[in-house]
Amino acid sequence: MVPHLITALTGPINEIEQRVLESMPAIERWFRLEWMEHTPVFYSSVDLRNAGYKLAPVDTQLFPTGFDNLTPEMAPLSVQAAMAAIEKICPEAKNLLLVPDRRQRSPFYLQHLQRLMQVFTQAGLNVRLGRLSDEGRAVETLALPDGGELRLEPLVRARGRLGLKDFDPCTVLLNDDLGEGVPQELLGLHQQYLLPPLHAGWGVRRRLNHLRSYEEVAKKFAKLLGMDHWLLTPMHADAGTFERGSAASLEALQAQADAMLGKVRRKFKEYGIAERPFVVVKCQRDDGRMRPLTLRDARDLAADGPAAAALAEAAGGAAVELLVQEGVPTYERVNDAVAEPVVCMIDRYVVGGYYRIHAGRASDEALRGPGSQFVPLAFAENHQMPRAGVKPGASAPNRFYMYGVVGRLAMLAAAYELEATDPEAEIYE
Amino acid sequence: MVPHLITALTGPINEIEQRVLESMPAIERWFRLEWMEHTPVFYSSVDLRNAGYKLAPVDTQLFPTGFDNLTPEMAPLSVQAAMAAIEKICPEAKNLLLVPDRRQRSPFYLQHLQRLMQVFTQAGLNVRLGRLSDEGRAVETLALPDGGELRLEPLVRARGRLGLKDFDPCTVLLNDDLGEGVPQELLGLHQQYLLPPLHAGWGVRRRLNHLRSYEEVAKKFAKLLGMDHWLLTPMHADAGTFERGSAASLEALQAQADAMLGKVRRKFKEYGIAERPFVVVKCQRDDGRMRPLTLRDARDLAADGPAAAALAEAAGGAAVELLVQEGVPTYERVNDAVAEPVVCMIDRYVVGGYYRIHAGRASDEALRGPGSQFVPLAFAENHQMPRAGVKPGASAPNRFYMYGVVGRLAMLAAAYELEATDPEAEIYE
Repeated sequence: MVPHLITALTGPINEIEQRVLESMPAIERWFRLEWMEHTPVFYSSVDLRNAGYKLAPVDTQLFPTGFDNLTPEMAPLSVQAAMAAIEKICPEAKNLLLVPDRRQRSPFYLQHLQRLMQVFTQAGLNVRLGRLSDEGRAVETLALPDGGELRLEPLVRARGRLGLKDFDPCTVLLNDDLGEGVPQELLGLHQQYLLPPLHAGWGVRRRLNHLRSYEEVAKKFAKLLGMDHWLLTPMHADAGTFERGSAASLEALQAQADAMLGKVRRKFKEYGIAERPFVVVKCQRDDGRMRPLTLRDARDLAADGPAAAALAEAAGGAAVELLVQEGVPTYERVNDAVAEPVVCMIDRYVVGGYYRIHAGRASDEALRGPGSQFVPLAFAENHQMPRAGVKPGASAPNRFYMYGVVGRLAMLAAAYELEATDPEAEIYE
Repeated sequence: MVPHLITALTGPINEIEQRVLESMPAIERWFRLEWMEHTPVFYSSVDLRNAGYKLAPVDTQLFPTGFDNLTPEMAPLSVQAAMAAIEKICPEAKNLLLVPDRRQRSPFYLQHLQRLMQVFTQAGLNVRLGRLSDEGRAVETLALPDGGELRLEPLVRARGRLGLKDFDPCTVLLNDDLGEGVPQELLGLHQQYLLPPLHAGWGVRRRLNHLRSYEEVAKKFAKLLGMDHWLLTPMHADAGTFERGSAASLEALQAQADAMLGKVRRKFKEYGIAERPFVVVKCQRDDGRMRPLTLRDARDLAADGPAAAALAEAAGGAAVELLVQEGVPTYERVNDAVAEPVVCMIDRYVVGGYYRIHAGRASDEALRGPGSQFVPLAFAENHQMPRAGVKPGASAPNRFYMYGVVGRLAMLAAAYELEATDPEAEIYE
């Protein structure tokens, strides 16, 4: 299925599409050279927003979900990418231990796990599911929508290695984002490959580090293409720490939001964009405590307003680290519902994508959360087969190719980010 | 399109399919370990024959054609495989010079070239076509069926490098099988990657070396699966040199054919196969001079018969090296025409496949040559997504997965073969 594209969008986005298409061999070579210096993250997904005047990644997941939304036609791409990834990490690999998210048990999530297991089985691994011990020591059997079942076995830590009863994996693949911290049993695994590394977990990771890395990557890439990196980058600023009941921290946040709105306004003026700017206030950690807040005016953060109340609730008794990000609306629609494309990757390869849609939200709101739905994209058939000579904005393959490029930029940024934040790298410096 | 499968076939082929499917992770790991020791050929295609009682590769092309038969949906797999291949050979690569076959100018072949150019462009290379100098020094412009055109520029040899005017490639990719010998300008290219290597050309290559390597590979693989390697291997024997008018060489060939018929008969008895055995006489070189001869009885090689006449014509004034191969009938059909699957690979990856069909030939004849047609296979969507639990013979994905495995065995055999026949390796021994 090829979702409806707003081909009426003109201006910068079509110029970007054209530039990206014309520069394809140079872009692919640029990525290839980057991968000589940097290690791709094992798997990832990136949320994009196409505002017509710019295209920007707004979230990069290093413990991706939603692979169940990829069509079966896309599956061979995942298998091939997984083969390439395994070959680099541990070519002798026989067993893979997959550790699912502790908090998710929806049928969609279980299908996502099933898909991951299929992909890695077909890439030549025996795959089993391990259950973190804070979930109890029992074997958990979960029914799949297709009538099959998944078996989650308790993790066994023995002689410095993590495994299951009678199952000693060479690689442990985490799909729990570690937002609640790192369980004891995952610490000190020096004899096995633990992917992603522990400092990729949301208990440690900070959005600001990622945004800084992304800006660095986007600047390099924009230079290659001879364009303004803002067209691919959401501006951002550290908004410090918010504490419940602290008027000073609310005022500081207001000041940051106001400054960001001013910056966006100036960019709109530069490009002649007739839009009303907005900013988004986010937690530095993606721990699900706070839905991103959309602000069109810093005064919306009045001490007695709903935005301040939401912040106070998210903070709870603790302080919460915030950032202010340029708001990027999404003007894509699937059946009239607001949609944002999500690009899925394994190693350096785009293996597919889907649209996250939400009928109940507006183009300037976050689409993640209850009520969102998913529509497979025709990425696999098309994203790597752009059609030269087609009018920008009119060809789904060309649009998807561009999405794949920007998704990979965000994934490369995650590679930069994990290098910069690697605690073990610091020891040897 | 999923071609019609003869699901009525029972016996060994369904057992092989089941065994292959059950052993999938072990098979994929086995290939991974083989690729640690051996270098996959850059690109290839393998003709298979499914006889119901066995499945065997009958030809392995190291200068493959027919990539135009792969559906557009399969294209991303080719791009991804090409990316992985380039990254290993020459990650800094910017320019690729593709040297087409000197003898082919059919619209199908031009579309094949167009597809290859698309794939390598999208993998991040500037691709141009070079014309061997025995074709003249002019630029040749060839019209494509889609209205576009291909430009073949004369090769320029300068300072030990091969290129075009203002185009210095890091890699030269040959699609001419060098059956007519190696042109002077391809010799001594030590500063560039020349793929495939010159000793893969049909002027040097001998089918017998490939068959020997294949037997070695098939034995290893069959041991892994605990089965008779004959189920995946065509038996073969060196049939010496045939000279026109030499009664002795005809008799020697008759003796070889007779011995091979006896061997096949014994295997049929062992497996209870109620078929009439046949053998195929082939040139050791695939230079298009002789269509393989099908023999059901060594007496068909009588000195005054049509088979002997065909041999004499192929030999012309020179001697011709022959081999005798067990005949493997193909019992697959597409729209009532005899069909054989062809598996296409780039590096270690299956990137698609198609059926070669020939309405005018029988199940025991070669299908290559004038009158053959091509039907894309649904390999890409399916071959790596086998469905466990489906009755053997009833699932196209499972059948295609098996085809992909046997195609890769033949490609691995080609890797063994090229190592064994490498003239430069001998120097250092």
